[in-house]
Amino acid sequence: MVAVTSSPNIGKSIDRLEAREKVTGRVEYVHHLRLPGMLYGKIFRSNVPHARIKSVDISAAQALEGVYQVITIDDIRKVIPHPYYGPAFHDQPILADGKVRFAGEPVAVVLATDKRIAEEAVGLITAEYEDLPGVFDEVDAMTSETLVHDELKPAATFPDLQHLKGRSGTNVALDYHLLHGDPDAGFAASDHIFEHTFRTQQVMHTPMEPFVSVADVQEGRVTLHTASQGPSFVRIEIARLLGLPENRVRVVVPHLGGGFGGKLYIKLEALVTALSMVAQRPVKISLTMEEQFYMVTRHPCTFKIKSGVTKEGKILARHCEIVWNGGAYADIGPRVTQKAGFTSAGPYDIENVSIDSYAVYTNRPPCGALRGFGAPQTAWAYERHTDMIADALGFDKIAFRRQNLLREGRPQASGTLMRDAALDQVLDHLVDRMNWDIPLDKGTGRIRRGRGIAIGFKGITAPTTSVAIVNMYGDGSCGLYIGTVDMGQGSDTVMAQIAAEVLNIDAASIRVIHPDTDVTPYDMGTLGSRSTFHMGTAVRLAAEEAKAKIAALAVELGMPEGSNVPLAELLRRKYGMQAGNIIGTGSFIPAYEKPDTKTGQSTKATPFWGVGAAGAEVEIDTETGHITVTKLVNVADVGTAINPKMVQQQLSGAGIMQLGFTLTENMVFRDGQLTNGSLADYKIPNLLDMPREFINEYVESRQKDGPFGAKGAGESTTIALSPAIGNAVADAIGIHLTDLPITPESIFRALQEANGTPLAGD
Amino acid sequence: MVAVTSSPNIGKSIDRLEAREKVTGRVEYVHHLRLPGMLYGKIFRSNVPHARIKSVDISAAQALEGVYQVITIDDIRKVIPHPYYGPAFHDQPILADGKVRFAGEPVAVVLATDKRIAEEAVGLITAEYEDLPGVFDEVDAMTSETLVHDELKPAATFPDLQHLKGRSGTNVALDYHLLHGDPDAGFAASDHIFEHTFRTQQVMHTPMEPFVSVADVQEGRVTLHTASQGPSFVRIEIARLLGLPENRVRVVVPHLGGGFGGKLYIKLEALVTALSMVAQRPVKISLTMEEQFYMVTRHPCTFKIKSGVTKEGKILARHCEIVWNGGAYADIGPRVTQKAGFTSAGPYDIENVSIDSYAVYTNRPPCGALRGFGAPQTAWAYERHTDMIADALGFDKIAFRRQNLLREGRPQASGTLMRDAALDQVLDHLVDRMNWDIPLDKGTGRIRRGRGIAIGFKGITAPTTSVAIVNMYGDGSCGLYIGTVDMGQGSDTVMAQIAAEVLNIDAASIRVIHPDTDVTPYDMGTLGSRSTFHMGTAVRLAAEEAKAKIAALAVELGMPEGSNVPLAELLRRKYGMQAGNIIGTGSFIPAYEKPDTKTGQSTKATPFWGVGAAGAEVEIDTETGHITVTKLVNVADVGTAINPKMVQQQLSGAGIMQLGFTLTENMVFRDGQLTNGSLADYKIPNLLDMPREFINEYVESRQKDGPFGAKGAGESTTIALSPAIGNAVADAIGIHLTDLPITPESIFRALQEANGTPLAGD
Repeated sequence: MVAVTSSPNIGKSIDRLEAREKVTGRVEYVHHLRLPGMLYGKIFRSNVPHARIKSVDISAAQALEGVYQVITIDDIRKVIPHPYYGPAFHDQPILADGKVRFAGEPVAVVLATDKRIAEEAVGLITAEYEDLPGVFDEVDAMTSETLVHDELKPAATFPDLQHLKGRSGTNVALDYHLLHGDPDAGFAASDHIFEHTFRTQQVMHTPMEPFVSVADVQEGRVTLHTASQGPSFVRIEIARLLGLPENRVRVVVPHLGGGFGGKLYIKLEALVTALSMVAQRPVKISLTMEEQFYMVTRHPCTFKIKSGVTKEGKILARHCEIVWNGGAYADIGPRVTQKAGFTSAGPYDIENVSIDSYAVYTNRPPCGALRGFGAPQTAWAYERHTDMIADALGFDKIAFRRQNLLREGRPQASGTLMRDAALDQVLDHLVDRMNWDIPLDKGTGRIRRGRGIAIGFKGITAPTTSVAIVNMYGDGSCGLYIGTVDMGQGSDTVMAQIAAEVLNIDAASIRVIHPDTDVTPYDMGTLGSRSTFHMGTAVRLAAEEAKAKIAALAVELGMPEGSNVPLAELLRRKYGMQAGNIIGTGSFIPAYEKPDTKTGQSTKATPFWGVGAAGAEVEIDTETGHITVTKLVNVADVGTAINPKMVQQQLSGAGIMQLGFTLTENMVFRDGQLTNGSLADYKIPNLLDMPREFINEYVESRQKDGPFGAKGAGESTTIALSPAIGNAVADAIGIHLTDLPITPESIFRALQEANGTPLAGD
Repeated sequence: MVAVTSSPNIGKSIDRLEAREKVTGRVEYVHHLRLPGMLYGKIFRSNVPHARIKSVDISAAQALEGVYQVITIDDIRKVIPHPYYGPAFHDQPILADGKVRFAGEPVAVVLATDKRIAEEAVGLITAEYEDLPGVFDEVDAMTSETLVHDELKPAATFPDLQHLKGRSGTNVALDYHLLHGDPDAGFAASDHIFEHTFRTQQVMHTPMEPFVSVADVQEGRVTLHTASQGPSFVRIEIARLLGLPENRVRVVVPHLGGGFGGKLYIKLEALVTALSMVAQRPVKISLTMEEQFYMVTRHPCTFKIKSGVTKEGKILARHCEIVWNGGAYADIGPRVTQKAGFTSAGPYDIENVSIDSYAVYTNRPPCGALRGFGAPQTAWAYERHTDMIADALGFDKIAFRRQNLLREGRPQASGTLMRDAALDQVLDHLVDRMNWDIPLDKGTGRIRRGRGIAIGFKGITAPTTSVAIVNMYGDGSCGLYIGTVDMGQGSDTVMAQIAAEVLNIDAASIRVIHPDTDVTPYDMGTLGSRSTFHMGTAVRLAAEEAKAKIAALAVELGMPEGSNVPLAELLRRKYGMQAGNIIGTGSFIPAYEKPDTKTGQSTKATPFWGVGAAGAEVEIDTETGHITVTKLVNVADVGTAINPKMVQQQLSGAGIMQLGFTLTENMVFRDGQLTNGSLADYKIPNLLDMPREFINEYVESRQKDGPFGAKGAGESTTIALSPAIGNAVADAIGIHLTDLPITPESIFRALQEANGTPLAGD
């Protein structure tokens, strides 16, 4: 940040470009869109978790006045012969195909011109099932004879998944292994060995804008208006499903009301496309808030972590075994397994590490990407584990961490060196903001207080590509064509700031052209904290090319160097009037090295490191188990903050989201049936849940190869928050909880158990 | 054409890319568009040709239930302080401002959510006028004391018009002069001198899709959906009117149902934009067919032509004096005056030429660009004149033309050399197709037959700019971003063929991205036969840049040269999956030289020459004057025909249009009031009017600097058709008509006059 404070654009907290449109209610969302002749679709869902479909009776629904058509997989197969999709595996049918694999799976769709009629008709559909045994727990699924899928069907896209093709007789979709050093020797040389098992629960994204997609298929051309974080992916996958070239599939994405990873890959898009093809009409489906529980969620996981430590506190060896509950369809789960797998030993300099990470199918709603991409689940384990070791050996928790922290230039377990990862500064800053050297009044009576910290890190999906176009018009004003989706994180503004900085113009004057795959170039997706780094670099390169072309035009026109003639004037001289364009393009993919086939290591496992630390102070009512987070500090390394205000919104937003995943949010299942599938029962944080003291800060650092030193900021404060609270709870009541969420009930039970008085009924 | 017949794309009559969409009725037109909250505007028009507005009473209209608002210039001035627009002069008010200058001028607009209510309310508006004397005839207007405008207000865009700023006391908007050689000496050396005066009538474009525009102004950003031939111009002019940068004005143009020059520059766009700003709602105006008479029309003109000829038939000197009736607002008339002016001496090698060409204001509906841009009016004169000289001197009409034809490398009157203008071949081909060496049976009784030919040429507006982007997606499919408007001429298909030829792919596989000024780069306009040459070159350059980038990528990936690995595979190797883009851009402006200040000459007056010839055989009923065109031959030089079928459609379409302007179409005025302002009274040609024998052909030639040897083809057959028919009439009845249209009535009157028996009442 120091190097760029004199910039006109970088490091400035300018308002979001769309701020006025948003507050005046004029901003475009897909929910607003109606096309002439459009039909509304409502989904009839399975009410059993695993079964063969004996029959579906749509006759009463079809007969309801105002119903256009009721559609099942048989209709879809007529227009799409192989109606299976998915980013990693082609395992998910557009509608249930002979079997249902989770309670809530779409079985049929009613199309009507009025959505209330469609909804009423859904109530008239009945299905007969032949129940199959279900498997719901990820650890059970590893060995269960109940199989969710007969065989694995990896997408052709990913060469590294092809060895799984046709694998059968297992629920393991992907097993990922990493070996660094000699763990056996490390454990043998250790003075102490610790092993703990941690579990996290299933939660969901809960964007305020539920899933919504509109498809219009005409004359062999598909137009999709969809609330998607990945328009390029949608285009390519729909083109594959339909056997079309990319340029016959147009995916248009306006603003999103949140995404958090849920709106990635294919969600409603294949379904509405198929429906539009069958019905020969535009089709819209918008889910209710509650239906989102059955679309995509976050992986529960069971993480067994084992460490060997010397008596001086050096961690010599670590083994991680993580089983990820992927639900009924793989979605991007296999990638979560790998990407969160390789950082699962934590941000510590451990010379001997082995990691085994498993994606398993169960009969639950599918799990995919959710802010943090598995890192928060692993940090819950490794940072609780860190405190438990420190407690057991009587180490200072800060000093123990500092002693083992991965430092600049040292290899992480993947073999990739730590570069531009401000772990030390983040930890120092956190310790400072927590006033760690001032002892906390922990209380002695019914109310007990405690504090805890945690630190974590995250690798970024690699290698991925972003392409940008900068188009300068005849008067020198500028359009920026990017496939990055502004879902509330402020990417439009940040990308404009980057382009403006290069072009030496005002960011607010740049017009960002929203994703439309016909015109905005390829972007892998708005996901995994990648946009500022990847698209930001592509934008920087595009703007630099435009700038170079402007300079070349000035030379062509015989201007003396450095004469700084405005572009509008250059173009006027070149073209004789206000005319013409200067067009720059930029394309970015970070360097990559394939993992070693034996160890799984690669020197380019991630293009940069996300770093986040959190500290919490809690108050616990030991009679009721009631927990109050009284202070919460999030600190992240974001490299340069392109827009400090928006970075802070990202840090606090991610923190609040993770706070819900820590304390209240939990999809509770009984025999595969979700028992709290409503926002009355499933509690996301609201304003009253905010900590009295809530600090979100970033340290001054610099990602050398990032645009103006920036890196991604959207996930870093998801990582360490849960274990910081877990550690604070342990500090307050002396009991180490291992499972999320931390609820009054779980604390109360733990206290009762510790006191030797288990609850009645247990 | 010979050089490229082995091309996979060039010279192939592939179907229009939008053919299926058009025949299934799914193609997008602005008429289909409805926006949420949109209001419909209906125009209240002046019923007097020249008057001061004393008052406009909108109270009854405003009080009608369902009326949202009634708007006059006073309302518009609140949002646009200087509400005057125009391409050459800023002389046209968005609504009448204190004065009306033609009968039919918009005075007020009713906005309502229902267009029938708006129409009803228009009937309730009354206006009080103080009549002013009107001037209607162009020759009268040259000297009249009645002034249509107080002073001239040239647009800042054009440096060459700035000397006119503030000029007052005249109706002459622009006087254009060209001097070549020494006409006085030429006339002095001539054996014979001929002088004739010719007149053409006012006609209109009559696109089957009437004018329609929708504006949506929100948060300082304008979105226009409009049936415009010039989206870039609309953007720049609206930005100027509102004081906005270009990137706050978005102009989107889908397919057009015809344009013919009428939908150029600003038509409804300024009005709907202003209305949307006042009403704070989206506003649509779509004209009726009949309202089009009051939007824009073709210039009537009076052309006095004088030639000096040797007894051997060599034309030594020519003087042209043309007065163009521009109507009440200049529109692009001043450019017609110049561009049609400089070729008005015809396609002959005359060493001494002087040209005086005047754009004058009158109290008629405005005149602007119409297919041919003045060339058909001038050719009517110079090719009738050619025949009249030949007749007078007893020359063979073909031989006389061949003797004087402008040949390759010779200077035209402008000083620009003839290059790639196949005048000889076109004339030869025409003579052949007319079977000229076989004498025609001319008849002896009541029915007389005659035949005539004519040849003409046209310069192209210069210099103008086109920019194109070629975007190749991850699977190698292609998007082509162009501002060229496909209004039925087939430009989408032709541009795709050019790009496909360079990229060696199938033209039908290219997706053409229609004009959207946010994303498609600058194009001066779809006008004046410029698209194939200008945009075609930009497309070629863009595709060549993309091709070079593909080759560079292959080298980067270590492919051996000429290995021809498909782009999809190259991108997969580069990006590890189906991802990325190859983006090429191309920009084209032809070389230009400013005219000499004394002579008006320039060696770069046109980037290429349009050449067209026509031949006609007619039958005339000498008792009634009834005329039947029994055979019509159009021959043009189009360079290479990129798509022969579509070139033929252009040639025949232009011919049919000009046939209407020759025989039936005529806006008849009485005291400035249009008396036949309906399509019941104003007759455009229909199928029954087609000649029994109708041949449209082009010669094999090559425009060396055109894309694959092509040049524009949309106007060439408008040029010579009228004089060919006029010459045929003279051949049949021995009378030389000088005015268009040639109607049964005009023939009957001429016959009566020749017989010395004028009609009763004359």
